[in-house]
Amino acid sequence: KRRYTITLLPGDGIGPEVISIAKNVLELAGSFEGIEFKFHEMLLGGAALDVTGVPLPDETISTAKQSDAVLLGAIGGYQWDHNDKHLKPETGLLQLREALKVFANLRPATVFPQLVDASTLKREVAEGVDIMVVRELTGGIYFGTPRGFGTNENGEEVGFNTEVYASYEIDRIARVAFETARKRNGKLCSVDKANVLEASMLWRKIVTAIASEYPDVELSHMYVDNAAMQLVRYPKQFDTILTNNIFGDIISDEASMITGSIGMLPSASIGKSGPGLFEPIHGSAPDIAGQDKANPFATVLSAAMLLRYGLGEENSAKRIETAVLDTLNRGFRTGDIHSSGTKLVGCKQLGDEILKSV
Amino acid sequence: KRRYTITLLPGDGIGPEVISIAKNVLELAGSFEGIEFKFHEMLLGGAALDVTGVPLPDETISTAKQSDAVLLGAIGGYQWDHNDKHLKPETGLLQLREALKVFANLRPATVFPQLVDASTLKREVAEGVDIMVVRELTGGIYFGTPRGFGTNENGEEVGFNTEVYASYEIDRIARVAFETARKRNGKLCSVDKANVLEASMLWRKIVTAIASEYPDVELSHMYVDNAAMQLVRYPKQFDTILTNNIFGDIISDEASMITGSIGMLPSASIGKSGPGLFEPIHGSAPDIAGQDKANPFATVLSAAMLLRYGLGEENSAKRIETAVLDTLNRGFRTGDIHSSGTKLVGCKQLGDEILKSV
Ligand SMILES: CC(C)[C@H](C(=O)O)[C@@H](O)C(=O)O
Ligand SMILES: CC(C)[C@H](C(=O)O)[C@@H](O)C(=O)O
Repeated sequence: KRRYTITLLPGDGIGPEVISIAKNVLELAGSFEGIEFKFHEMLLGGAALDVTGVPLPDETISTAKQSDAVLLGAIGGYQWDHNDKHLKPETGLLQLREALKVFANLRPATVFPQLVDASTLKREVAEGVDIMVVRELTGGIYFGTPRGFGTNENGEEVGFNTEVYASYEIDRIARVAFETARKRNGKLCSVDKANVLEASMLWRKIVTAIASEYPDVELSHMYVDNAAMQLVRYPKQFDTILTNNIFGDIISDEASMITGSIGMLPSASIGKSGPGLFEPIHGSAPDIAGQDKANPFATVLSAAMLLRYGLGEENSAKRIETAVLDTLNRGFRTGDIHSSGTKLVGCKQLGDEILKSV
Repeated sequence: KRRYTITLLPGDGIGPEVISIAKNVLELAGSFEGIEFKFHEMLLGGAALDVTGVPLPDETISTAKQSDAVLLGAIGGYQWDHNDKHLKPETGLLQLREALKVFANLRPATVFPQLVDASTLKREVAEGVDIMVVRELTGGIYFGTPRGFGTNENGEEVGFNTEVYASYEIDRIARVAFETARKRNGKLCSVDKANVLEASMLWRKIVTAIASEYPDVELSHMYVDNAAMQLVRYPKQFDTILTNNIFGDIISDEASMITGSIGMLPSASIGKSGPGLFEPIHGSAPDIAGQDKANPFATVLSAAMLLRYGLGEENSAKRIETAVLDTLNRGFRTGDIHSSGTKLVGCKQLGDEILKSV
């Protein structure tokens, strides 16, 4: 038997509901493949703030580091929105990414054939979209120093941040992107703003240099403003997209919304070694929390990414993905993806249906 | 008679073709309203590089500064893409914005009823979209220092830029945005990344403080990643958007593409005093340059913005905008916006048709 320890971080809002489904699905899928899980549930975000006064308690960090993978629900809520920065739920997430050194964020934007009409894009534009955004996650303007507030020479208040990339940071994320593209359709588009920013010029230089080691991958470059347009105009032109932390934040969310069903989209954040962090891309949806309305598919698919990228358990990953497709094919939908002719169910019942399909 | 001096900057690619049409339209529209124009044609971008060795010659700066407004075609082309930064066409444009101190960039994203099907978004989503993005244009990471290349403590190459905003920069662009929203539907959405960046926290603080002076404008805030999603999901929720230089670059281009016809979209860049800079948002399209295929509508509409925001000549501005709508209604289209049932014409003939409608 293969044994893994998983840290569960339910977080806030709908987080606990979707995590509880994903846990059951993981357990069942693993049991068919000779895998046994041990779960540790820990605090993060607002849930942690309320109990411990900080968004990322030390025990959460140490438990997460000692586990084989971390599965996160969602964080944030109105009640913490006006907290000081170091007391925001988001800060806990950023600290966790840093603590786990998960520099590579993989964000698939996939249009499920069953849900193509959920997209606001015309059917012929949305159909078949299948993009993987590889976002740098522990560098750039999110973490660069100097940062803060000050006064300029005229005594006026200023706020400032530093966008900075070192060659090794670009090198390692680029390699993840080339490897990812190689396993997909062999097309990699690196997105930057090299016509204006020095940080992007270095980015482009290093990505271009590495390309010679991946002759089977076709590399192109695109400015971020153009990428934001091209995703709307003709998203099918993209296979794998490589980009930095802040551009990746924007571009990956835009790509997600192209699919029309962000309740379906998972993510994986991985480092060189150590546990990866897996989470749905949707937020904590405080308005529907506790009402059994949340869509658990994205978290269940995050569990599949956990198996594939975090544990190397491809068979169990596929088993879960197949179960998701099967559940969709059997017509079960939560409210966010419901349409006439399909069966509207709550979070729990959808979880039961996924279990039947596993 | 009112007399104005206009600096024309045809630039590269299709720039000269579209500028020549817009010049004729300006002259004719002005003549009906008692306006006389004097035009000075100057070099910018690749065209300037080839002749003078720099992308923004001193004579262009001084002529532009002495004129009442500047109308620009487009800049850039493959042959200059690998130039050093200070010899790139784009650098000339950035220097011009700085020299003219045009800190406020107004970027309408309007879906013309005649062209709604050009959008990749479903008709019911695209129909009626009418957004004005107010982008800060002379600050932030585009101009912030320190910037450049260096080595870190491990001897590795780094590239870095500084995102920095001073309170007065935020104050003045916010006022432009509130004034703009007030003249539109009274809704202003400020887009930032205040959950992560100090520069955005200051931005949000100052925008919020100013709001009390505009009780008739309804202010909201949105994170940039969410804005990138919401533009795809439900663009009609937006009236006026206020944002910084780099987020504005991305968000305004995304909003443009929502309309499906970027060949129709103008822009205005204005400062506190002195001449404004007016230009279509499309690029230089080197692949169709010199073939009489370019769409001159965006440049003609930029001339209308020049009249309105640059010269305060509202009547002539309206006259041009009405002529554009009339030309569309009479069915004339260049290739980029052509559809069955409409008349495909070249750039010159479309120009003649617009003149007939003026
Ligand atoms: C919550 C926020 C700090 C975070 C980010 O910007 O990285 C989120 O938007 C994401 O993309 O995971
Ligand atoms: C050409 C480039 C420097 C410019 C910018 O990024 O500002 C362009 O994209 C724009 O939006 O006008």
